[in-house]
Amino acid sequence: MSKPIHHPACFAMGTGDPLSIGGIDLPRLAHQVGQTPFFAYDRTGIFKRVQMLRFLLPKGIHLHYAIKANPMPAVVQFLATQVDGLDVASGGELGIALDTLIPRAHISFAGPGKSSHDLLMAMAAGVVLNLESEGELETVFSLSELHGYRPKVAIRVNPDFELRGSGMRMGGGAKPFGVDVERVPALVRRILASDLVFQGFHIFSGSQSLKADALIEAQKNTVDLAIRLVQESGAPLPTLNLGGGFGIPYFPGESPLELERVGDALQHLLPHLHQQLPDTQPVIELGRYLVGEAGVYVCRILDRKVSRGQTFLITDGGLHHHLAASGNFGQVIRKNYPVTIVTRKKSPPLEEVSVVGPLCTPLDLLADKMLLPRAEVGDLVVIYQSGAYGLSASPAAFLGHPPAREVLIGDLEP
Amino acid sequence: MSKPIHHPACFAMGTGDPLSIGGIDLPRLAHQVGQTPFFAYDRTGIFKRVQMLRFLLPKGIHLHYAIKANPMPAVVQFLATQVDGLDVASGGELGIALDTLIPRAHISFAGPGKSSHDLLMAMAAGVVLNLESEGELETVFSLSELHGYRPKVAIRVNPDFELRGSGMRMGGGAKPFGVDVERVPALVRRILASDLVFQGFHIFSGSQSLKADALIEAQKNTVDLAIRLVQESGAPLPTLNLGGGFGIPYFPGESPLELERVGDALQHLLPHLHQQLPDTQPVIELGRYLVGEAGVYVCRILDRKVSRGQTFLITDGGLHHHLAASGNFGQVIRKNYPVTIVTRKKSPPLEEVSVVGPLCTPLDLLADKMLLPRAEVGDLVVIYQSGAYGLSASPAAFLGHPPAREVLIGDLEP
Repeated sequence: MSKPIHHPACFAMGTGDPLSIGGIDLPRLAHQVGQTPFFAYDRTGIFKRVQMLRFLLPKGIHLHYAIKANPMPAVVQFLATQVDGLDVASGGELGIALDTLIPRAHISFAGPGKSSHDLLMAMAAGVVLNLESEGELETVFSLSELHGYRPKVAIRVNPDFELRGSGMRMGGGAKPFGVDVERVPALVRRILASDLVFQGFHIFSGSQSLKADALIEAQKNTVDLAIRLVQESGAPLPTLNLGGGFGIPYFPGESPLELERVGDALQHLLPHLHQQLPDTQPVIELGRYLVGEAGVYVCRILDRKVSRGQTFLITDGGLHHHLAASGNFGQVIRKNYPVTIVTRKKSPPLEEVSVVGPLCTPLDLLADKMLLPRAEVGDLVVIYQSGAYGLSASPAAFLGHPPAREVLIGDLEP
Repeated sequence: MSKPIHHPACFAMGTGDPLSIGGIDLPRLAHQVGQTPFFAYDRTGIFKRVQMLRFLLPKGIHLHYAIKANPMPAVVQFLATQVDGLDVASGGELGIALDTLIPRAHISFAGPGKSSHDLLMAMAAGVVLNLESEGELETVFSLSELHGYRPKVAIRVNPDFELRGSGMRMGGGAKPFGVDVERVPALVRRILASDLVFQGFHIFSGSQSLKADALIEAQKNTVDLAIRLVQESGAPLPTLNLGGGFGIPYFPGESPLELERVGDALQHLLPHLHQQLPDTQPVIELGRYLVGEAGVYVCRILDRKVSRGQTFLITDGGLHHHLAASGNFGQVIRKNYPVTIVTRKKSPPLEEVSVVGPLCTPLDLLADKMLLPRAEVGDLVVIYQSGAYGLSASPAAFLGHPPAREVLIGDLEP
């Protein structure tokens, strides 16, 4: 049995010798950025991903971007011109979203533990509050009465099913997220009897799924559940956020999601939704799937050493910038991200090496015994699939090394 | 068999009702800090820990603080008045160390992947460079010749043994840290033949060990190795950094290190060292052991909800401030840190709850099904053993929530 390898789709940002990212050859890009380490995000990759979704998903479905995946303001500004709405998870992200031209009614604010401060920001801005609990509704009642706002609210539903085989289970069973489905109708009736504006449901069952069947099943369950909840609560449903959960391949042996199959199933599912709930706007909310494959992390080799037969490349970048690539963020067993090396030599031979960062901890491991082109001090290490949950999800201050830069590159060809 | 519980030593920062930390009752401390979440470090706890080490370890051994455990400048300033030296892991940490009165010859700079920029900073400052590889020595030669410095260098040795049962194995086998012991004599001879000032060895075999036997064995191996290396290389040895590796209990079932036994063994080991190497200054370098137990993380309950029979307390703090307490930093199986709740009610009954942060991810879990005093919205959650690898080792920007504050409290009674 041969060892599993990374799927070619993992290298969609660019391959070739010399390697070019966003249309710029990599050594030049490093000069242009002015330092290593850096993250480079490619506008064209994001654009093409949105285009593919528009092509394969049914017309009329809205596409939202969940800022938490990559909150770099330039990325959010660009996506705001491409998608129909934004989802934020904090007052900080709300500020980034409000700096765009996305209509405020198409910005939703989800997350357990919203502070009164954040709730008030959201009410004043006129965005949609995704309520996570009865307690949160009480706080919203008090604040809206005190300040005279009529907030738009949706209910985040903790469904009675989950997204099978997803990287993160967000629904089903006892959860801190959302309101248990069995308590939702009573909550809707309370909202309808109040001054608040009921906006809809947000039903989110999991994330980072590569299995079309599981997503199709979850979307069908979600639509059925929404129809049932409308029947039980008697509320009109302006919006139904079906969540996302579309995954991208990171590790050897993983294959890209068959988006065509998900799109086909939605083509059949939506008429059923429209028939039952003709005035409901369906929304798909995606974070990682829009940006994850359109980013690389680039660092430079500072030292090359052999210890007891094993070769280590020591770089200026590491887990302080890219915790997920080191395997320390939600992974049970560490696996290698797709990695390559840009050498100054032509076609160097391959060798087995480990790439490590500059931190004094064995956790700071970017590539564990991978077969890579033979590299020298000064060469560049490229980690693919780094456009989501990279810099913002990393302990930047750990050990006091310099920060990474982030750049958004790539011209959009007409 | 009863369920393992947290050792009482885990709560050394303070217990009692009302709970008082550093001599201040906790609700008052929260007012004084001006916000939750925050980390509070207790000067008295750090002071007592150093005193205990001075009492139990042999006279004449130097005690160094490894800044990476907690780089808060106030903490480092205080420790600089208590210990004999500081160890830094980056140019950033070097800057913090240089702002103290610690003699520069007692500051050492370790870490793989030091940049030329950082090496030059360290040479100009006159601190000791712990060399991690032959390649690094070449860079030091070039830089010192170019700029006319005579840097003090020590060699970090990758020993041929490891610290048994340590939380992190830093030595033994193939490692990115240090120079393999078998190549050290040749490196020493190169240094002695140059303009560089040879300062000694740094032999570090592991960290976070709670087993006195394992530490005693590693220290004996370290001293034997240093004696052997001096014999083989013919170099006088000004300093021998024995590393640290002293652990603190975090999880149910763990017991504090028996420091007395480690001290006794060192009392017998040091005469042997002095006899063989009379001019060598031994150093013990500790990070976590000096500060880890002298810190708490405090956050406030924003919501209390029951989902399908399970109670969740949702706080304004979470993994973005305290990744280690969420179980996502180097832990294979998630376990609970020691946690308590400060309620405004007198002697509330206990209940089984999970404490979660405000992030939209199931990873943001601070206490999983623990038995805690029944809490209401507004009550405070206290996570003990949070003085090391807390805020600086966490993804502060993740999801855009407000930052935590850090305070150093506690008067030193004469």
